[in-house]
Amino acid sequence: MTERTLVKNLAAREDGTVTIAGWVETVRDQKKVQFVILRDETGSVQVVNPATRESDGTNDAAVATTEAISGLTTGSFVRVTGELKHDERVKLGGIEVKLASLEVASLAFPEPPIADDSSIDKRLDWRFIDLRRPEQNLVFRAQTTFEHALRTWWVDNDFIEIHTPKLMASASESRAELFEIEYFEGKAYLAQSPQFFKQMAQPAGFGKVFEIAPAFRADPSFTSRHATEFTSVDAEISWVDSHEDVMAMHEQLLVAGLQAVKDKHGDAIKAAFDVDIVVPTAPFPRIPLAEAHEILKAHGYEVPRADGDLDPEGERQLSEHVKETYGHEFVFVTDYATGIRPFYHRRHDDDASLTNSYDLLFNGVEISTGAQREHRVDVLIAQAEEKGMDPKELEFYLDFFRHGVPPHGGFGMGLQRVMMLMLHQPSIREVTYLFRGPNRLLP
Amino acid sequence: MTERTLVKNLAAREDGTVTIAGWVETVRDQKKVQFVILRDETGSVQVVNPATRESDGTNDAAVATTEAISGLTTGSFVRVTGELKHDERVKLGGIEVKLASLEVASLAFPEPPIADDSSIDKRLDWRFIDLRRPEQNLVFRAQTTFEHALRTWWVDNDFIEIHTPKLMASASESRAELFEIEYFEGKAYLAQSPQFFKQMAQPAGFGKVFEIAPAFRADPSFTSRHATEFTSVDAEISWVDSHEDVMAMHEQLLVAGLQAVKDKHGDAIKAAFDVDIVVPTAPFPRIPLAEAHEILKAHGYEVPRADGDLDPEGERQLSEHVKETYGHEFVFVTDYATGIRPFYHRRHDDDASLTNSYDLLFNGVEISTGAQREHRVDVLIAQAEEKGMDPKELEFYLDFFRHGVPPHGGFGMGLQRVMMLMLHQPSIREVTYLFRGPNRLLP
Repeated sequence: MTERTLVKNLAAREDGTVTIAGWVETVRDQKKVQFVILRDETGSVQVVNPATRESDGTNDAAVATTEAISGLTTGSFVRVTGELKHDERVKLGGIEVKLASLEVASLAFPEPPIADDSSIDKRLDWRFIDLRRPEQNLVFRAQTTFEHALRTWWVDNDFIEIHTPKLMASASESRAELFEIEYFEGKAYLAQSPQFFKQMAQPAGFGKVFEIAPAFRADPSFTSRHATEFTSVDAEISWVDSHEDVMAMHEQLLVAGLQAVKDKHGDAIKAAFDVDIVVPTAPFPRIPLAEAHEILKAHGYEVPRADGDLDPEGERQLSEHVKETYGHEFVFVTDYATGIRPFYHRRHDDDASLTNSYDLLFNGVEISTGAQREHRVDVLIAQAEEKGMDPKELEFYLDFFRHGVPPHGGFGMGLQRVMMLMLHQPSIREVTYLFRGPNRLLP
Repeated sequence: MTERTLVKNLAAREDGTVTIAGWVETVRDQKKVQFVILRDETGSVQVVNPATRESDGTNDAAVATTEAISGLTTGSFVRVTGELKHDERVKLGGIEVKLASLEVASLAFPEPPIADDSSIDKRLDWRFIDLRRPEQNLVFRAQTTFEHALRTWWVDNDFIEIHTPKLMASASESRAELFEIEYFEGKAYLAQSPQFFKQMAQPAGFGKVFEIAPAFRADPSFTSRHATEFTSVDAEISWVDSHEDVMAMHEQLLVAGLQAVKDKHGDAIKAAFDVDIVVPTAPFPRIPLAEAHEILKAHGYEVPRADGDLDPEGERQLSEHVKETYGHEFVFVTDYATGIRPFYHRRHDDDASLTNSYDLLFNGVEISTGAQREHRVDVLIAQAEEKGMDPKELEFYLDFFRHGVPPHGGFGMGLQRVMMLMLHQPSIREVTYLFRGPNRLLP
């Protein structure tokens, strides 16, 4: 392995020989001296080389190096060994590396296919180059930290990690937006969510489970927050009394995740995105959906939906109200009407028109749905029929409730939405490693 | 939330009121006293209730409780509040709970559909009941610990977690064993591995990446170690000099994972499976493939394959040899012949018939393939053509190498195989949450 020093660690090193490796950001090829800005995954540094333009018979190596630098294209990957020098006059971090030897690992094609002002679509065509931008690198470092903090919280709290199958014999929730697969002699479907299978962990006696995994929706939308494949963050726990228990878990998890991101990347995120990561205080505000409508009305906004659900503008305005009133970036909107919730959400004991469920909004956008599940199989069947579903197609799922099952609940949360809203990005495309949409399967 | 005490924590508590919750393992309904063995995700405990069979006008609640216990079916989920008593005479852990109140959350159908001696196929039909067995619970707790240790190692070593898309426009490695999806007006394919996309992180300048995610193979095999969907553990790192750097990372990772499993579950695994978790010492033994054949020959085994790859029996015997010779459960078989490796494996600089690659065997079975990748695009194209592939179909992948890319390498490892071999299980079916095979998509 090349023993290389990461650029971020150069400043703390004493002057002396170092090897660095990364890609060429710019070359300034002056007559007497050459400058290369080399970037790696942690930062960029200036490499300097006195140009040797003419051979005098004894300086062939120096001439070759000079010519190699002259030939360097933006994006080429190189290894440089040289003398690290601290020098306050150097704008880029007060250090530079005086080149002793250069190894070109891979020369990039001369013309980079995208520039800083390329459209998002063009950038996605060349996502692997787009990802070289330091802000993009930071997105995925922050995401790594966020996810690891969630998992660590779960592990510390005795949750079991599960890997539910994405191949299913039938629909997970509805036949709409379902991808169909040729499966040997028959058909299979791609799971839209791990919903049924994470619930299965409850009659299995697993108690508390989590999963972070892909989910698939054949959704023809082209909005800033929809994709045909996304990363779903899921948890499900036994012995809840209501959705309140799920929310209590959910908010602790987000506190842990955002605390970790703030601790590790707070300054870098401020510098790159001008965003202050705020660690939320628990409990998060909770507002029943009916009350949310009253609040919006009082703000002069009437949600233009017949079904009573919030629309994106309603979510935005409600979040604004919550931020003004409670100084909080999150809000649980609770007690959704039965008509706009899936059949497996448990209803209030004293009012079947309302469910033990919630949506979680973060900076104006829904990131998650959670609920207590209906675990009484007779009620579950009745609710499925009421929604026009055929219980026969749900047999494998209904079986989970026939051989003993504890009361339970959980949530599913879109990871890319969380990252988009955490970093104030305009679209999940900016925070997805490789976005997938109706028109995008490449690269 | 029901404040319940986990069964594993009862022994350490003082006598007094407790609430426990779980499922009914057995009921002994004697005339004067009733015993219920209640199990939760951490263990089982005896609940005792003096039977009150006849009403005297003042004891209706007691009679009702007695009748409820008489009606309990195996697998029913219940909550019990009662008095914890330490009593050495109680065989099950020296404790019992004297019942004060019982709440039946869900009554199981009278006949459990499977028994301890049911076939594996029958058990998989009712996997959620099969998973209630304490050994099954332990499998997934151990897996949770193992995965978390891997991820912690990666995070501590500055890796970035990626979520590569499972929906692809074309084949990831070969057209064989590929699931096809109806994708709006066209077709898509399910990723057989994150190979191409984790490599993409290298020209993206991510340096070191990991992913644990599903992978899909339309493989019609019915062996103990194949599935159509499995969990792939992947890592890819920049600036490797050869596959040796990948192996060095790989073995450190496994040391961390097995150490964590031994620390947390070593005793339980010994008790449940009679298996001693061995933390391997690094470096693991390394044996070039050609030498492996010599060793097998010396043991009197000639591998019956024309292509020079090892067969399962060869892998088993080689592992046995390594265990006897080096006392090691792992062995890297290195320098595979070019003919049995994919086009993107880098070949030896001085011998194009051999690749910078390895397979890792664990207790006699291959769990992983790793390699240095070919990053020189002209060589890569030549190698693809040599394998009969059409570079035009690989354009999006070849682009990754045209705009600058560092030398890199990585591995993919089957999580379920690791767990099978770690716990000495006969099949990955036993350690997969919900197995998927050519004939199995349910539940």
